[in-house]
Amino acid sequence: MEMKFTPVGIVHSPFKKKDDIAIEKCIDPGGFDDVHGELEIYPAYSKGLEDIDGFSHLFVLFLFHRAERGHLLVRPPHDRKERGVFSTRSPHRPNPLGLSVVRLLERSGSTLKVAGVDMIEGTPILDIKPYTPSELKKNACFGWLEA
Amino acid sequence: MEMKFTPVGIVHSPFKKKDDIAIEKCIDPGGFDDVHGELEIYPAYSKGLEDIDGFSHLFVLFLFHRAERGHLLVRPPHDRKERGVFSTRSPHRPNPLGLSVVRLLERSGSTLKVAGVDMIEGTPILDIKPYTPSELKKNACFGWLEA
Repeated sequence: MEMKFTPVGIVHSPFKKKDDIAIEKCIDPGGFDDVHGELEIYPAYSKGLEDIDGFSHLFVLFLFHRAERGHLLVRPPHDRKERGVFSTRSPHRPNPLGLSVVRLLERSGSTLKVAGVDMIEGTPILDIKPYTPSELKKNACFGWLEA
Repeated sequence: MEMKFTPVGIVHSPFKKKDDIAIEKCIDPGGFDDVHGELEIYPAYSKGLEDIDGFSHLFVLFLFHRAERGHLLVRPPHDRKERGVFSTRSPHRPNPLGLSVVRLLERSGSTLKVAGVDMIEGTPILDIKPYTPSELKKNACFGWLEA
């Protein structure tokens, strides 16, 4: 069984390539909070952005377009141990799908100005979803990340 | 540009079909908290589950395999108005990608017993990611959902 998807937009980011992202940012939960960028939604899909104003945070589902597929063990930044890929946010995963939560600053036509950008320039956007109360897990524990 | 993905597992759910899910559950942020199910990861990918113990919550990225593609405006449950699809969690989206946060109860080999299941039986799993402190947005606002 195979599934085909097509981009609905593209990320504009101050990070032009992966090496522009300091590792320190990746291990700080708020490391990208002040990184601004834009989610450009293609005209064919812009009607889907109606009613998005008023949500402070959005999920962006995207393609890790520079990732290698197929890794099951990966070494996270600043970690000495290899970890199972499903317990990490590594781009190198069986299906190279990325997930970020960004803060919506402003909508301008079919472009969303956002903060919290940890993607690189040109990242293909697959979906945008609102961050809802169901995703606010105040008592969450964070496994090996807490060690 | 087209992207191809392949399932890494399958959801086992008490909901055998879409109509088994009461609308009331969908509009209550904790409506699925007590719904238990299993994420069966296929043997080829089970090594990717290492180190997942200790994370209380996981993101599941999945395919809405019964959805219709292509809608840009949808009418959410208990809403009178059509909304832009990117401001809703409707399954009927340009790319039918689903996203749920589940609570990890127990890992048994390559099966994860979880709570918070809002998917139907047989849903194809594309990815599992840990829920991390970056996703805990305590001051979030929820747009039209708050009205």
